[in-house]
Amino acid sequence: MVKDLEEDFHTQYGIISAKDLKSEKEMLFSNKKEKFLLFNPTFPDLWENLLRGPQVLIQKDIGLVLAKTGINKESKVVDAGGGSGSLCLSLANVCKEVTVYEINPEHHSIITKNANLLGFKNLNLKQQDVYQGIDEKELDLITLDLPEPWRVTKSAEKVLKTGAFLVIYLPNLTQVQQFIESTKESRITVIEILELLERKWKIEEKIMRPEFEMLGHTGFMVFCRKF
Amino acid sequence: MVKDLEEDFHTQYGIISAKDLKSEKEMLFSNKKEKFLLFNPTFPDLWENLLRGPQVLIQKDIGLVLAKTGINKESKVVDAGGGSGSLCLSLANVCKEVTVYEINPEHHSIITKNANLLGFKNLNLKQQDVYQGIDEKELDLITLDLPEPWRVTKSAEKVLKTGAFLVIYLPNLTQVQQFIESTKESRITVIEILELLERKWKIEEKIMRPEFEMLGHTGFMVFCRKF
Amino acid sequence: MVKDLEEDFHTQYGIISAKDLKSEKEMLFSNKKEKFLLFNPTFPDLWENLLRGPQVLIQKDIGLVLAKTGINKESKVVDAGGGSGSLCLSLANVCKEVTVYEINPEHHSIITKNANLLGFKNLNLKQQDVYQGIDEKELDLITLDLPEPWRVTKSAEKVLKTGAFLVIYLPNLTQVQQFIESTKESRITVIEILELLERKWKIEEKIMRPEFEMLGHTGFMVFCRKF
Amino acid sequence: MVKDLEEDFHTQYGIISAKDLKSEKEMLFSNKKEKFLLFNPTFPDLWENLLRGPQVLIQKDIGLVLAKTGINKESKVVDAGGGSGSLCLSLANVCKEVTVYEINPEHHSIITKNANLLGFKNLNLKQQDVYQGIDEKELDLITLDLPEPWRVTKSAEKVLKTGAFLVIYLPNLTQVQQFIESTKESRITVIEILELLERKWKIEEKIMRPEFEMLGHTGFMVFCRKF
Repeated sequence: MVKDLEEDFHTQYGIISAKDLKSEKEMLFSNKKEKFLLFNPTFPDLWENLLRGPQVLIQKDIGLVLAKTGINKESKVVDAGGGSGSLCLSLANVCKEVTVYEINPEHHSIITKNANLLGFKNLNLKQQDVYQGIDEKELDLITLDLPEPWRVTKSAEKVLKTGAFLVIYLPNLTQVQQFIESTKESRITVIEILELLERKWKIEEKIMRPEFEMLGHTGFMVFCRKF
Repeated sequence: MVKDLEEDFHTQYGIISAKDLKSEKEMLFSNKKEKFLLFNPTFPDLWENLLRGPQVLIQKDIGLVLAKTGINKESKVVDAGGGSGSLCLSLANVCKEVTVYEINPEHHSIITKNANLLGFKNLNLKQQDVYQGIDEKELDLITLDLPEPWRVTKSAEKVLKTGAFLVIYLPNLTQVQQFIESTKESRITVIEILELLERKWKIEEKIMRPEFEMLGHTGFMVFCRKF
Repeated sequence: MVKDLEEDFHTQYGIISAKDLKSEKEMLFSNKKEKFLLFNPTFPDLWENLLRGPQVLIQKDIGLVLAKTGINKESKVVDAGGGSGSLCLSLANVCKEVTVYEINPEHHSIITKNANLLGFKNLNLKQQDVYQGIDEKELDLITLDLPEPWRVTKSAEKVLKTGAFLVIYLPNLTQVQQFIESTKESRITVIEILELLERKWKIEEKIMRPEFEMLGHTGFMVFCRKF
Repeated sequence: MVKDLEEDFHTQYGIISAKDLKSEKEMLFSNKKEKFLLFNPTFPDLWENLLRGPQVLIQKDIGLVLAKTGINKESKVVDAGGGSGSLCLSLANVCKEVTVYEINPEHHSIITKNANLLGFKNLNLKQQDVYQGIDEKELDLITLDLPEPWRVTKSAEKVLKTGAFLVIYLPNLTQVQQFIESTKESRITVIEILELLERKWKIEEKIMRPEFEMLGHTGFMVFCRKF
């Protein structure tokens, strides 16, 4: 994660000289003779390094949003909640335009900084309360990772395209229940309620078993469409 | 899934006239007075309708590839295997360029047809055996859903960018083991082996429980990077 | 499942003579020359054959009751609900004395018949409504597999020994919630709420994977103790 | 866990006098005025306190053995492996007679001590290597929690009753595979290979979700019968 090619880069395995960093070489050595491989970071490299905060949507859940909604370079999306930006940055990575509602000034500044570092021009960050309404129109997707998504149902109904998606991410089933209640008599139709369990495996010589440590729960996801 | 606006559309709930289809109206009625909602299909609408074949990568697994590799509008990808195209079409939906190796003539023609219907210009389909090598260079991602991925390890090592991803999808752990073996002494490094379990929920009035039916297994996914 | 040693036993693979059945031979042949192995049925053999009815507690869940409560040849147990008797028969298999409350006459007669066939003398079946109260005292365990277990909380509190267990089996979390509510301000203390997912594996030569079919849900189990 | 009624019992909440312990009172007070409830420990209370050692069979897996084999007060069982005795003590709790093969002197002495504290007369502990053979005959169940169960297949075949169970507990699928191989051309027939995932729930007022922490893996269980 070198940020300035004009300066030597300090690591726990020694210092890599600025001269080496600017060279075309792929294989570098620190002053402690440790081997380094130089390459352009991918989006997940940056994503993992930028994020800060106690609780973020993890990749399995982000992936489900991407795959189930099929959003792409033509999609217009609004995202709200989830302070550290793990979801909105991933959406901006594939969409045409992502608008984020983030009223908390601290979170707002973290996301701004992260979007800048990633060089994303298509992420529009508003320090505005999504419970007060959504300004954008003809949206392909709205994603909500906030405590009271039922306060957004009516606004979402107005600004989504027909057939477009509303995806809710919630830790508690009581919240899921209350959100579903809010969609009655609206054009927001609940399609699926689901959760993903990720199981990691360890396979090495004679060892072939699931990892003992496992995350027992992240969140429930409610997939809705405007019909 | 109307394909020709000049013709009446026949459904199990009656016929919708071509005149109505071409109108700007969102709400239509069939000759049986059944209500229809007219909207542009999203990618998942098309995807679900186009796919044919006994076994396809499902959305939870496709999503994990999208989220963990972070591919986007700038990515160059090669995909091989998985006859019906469920993965390659999803990749083409977000990537710059996807090349598919598909030697089976029947599968080749299904994918061609599906890509045409979706109007994808960035999917390049080769009727070629991926076990014989990969022509493309500087790839950001290679995905393999075929019985002997270990026969592709060496080629993948040559044509991936440093830091880029190789993702393997396999039903059996014996295959996973054999693939991992093939990466020893190569620059292909296994990062993670994992699987996702998807649990659907039913929430309606007093009912709040997981669905009784569940898919117990789809495939194991091996995420590798070239280091 | 031979019931009468004086009669020939008819199977889909031919008839085994009564003479053979009464012999000491372990290996028998039907009149169609098919090989049969003769042995005393174990409890699970009988259990699987006796049970009838749409929904029964399955072994993983029964096992959890046995292991977590540690009931044994000295335990006095009351069981209610779960018409076909899958749980009460399993309890009677290891306990000193099991009393079953079953008000439905049809279920009552099925359980009676099954207990007789198993030759269980320690299963006491009452055609009585458990919601009206429990007569037994100083119980080591009460198990409930019925729609409104909260109507039994007060009775259970009275008749359980201090430290003894109350185990509730319920399909819906809304019911679990309502039951937990009923324990407030009683000596019934909720210890754990949990569910078990059973995953079957197929391992044969090159095949090594979980079965594709899986039961996504049976029931939530609430383990309580009287403190 | 009071062991001597003639002595005061010291706890982190103060001392309870021997006089109180011997009284008939259920509710006691320590010298710090803390309230204590006096009751006879159940088997799980003792079991949890006696066990020591890094890895023990946990209740969900023990329960599955109990429920699937249906062992009871008439069963003769042999158990080997699993040093701390978590399984053999649970078996002795419901069976007629359990013989344990434990060659490790340290584990041998732990199990002896635990069996004594529980007052179990039906647990027969042998400091003998089970790989060298099994002396008992006409067994209803053999349970193995050791690294090379395939070395016991032949002995098990000889000493199990026809129709009786052999249950193997193993962390790695490579071991499961090797064990299954060992049963070919024997009368030991693999019935099922499975694993249980236990999911704990937190339900309190507005909270209704699975616990974030979860044990991702304990062991695979192979259920066999002699046919």
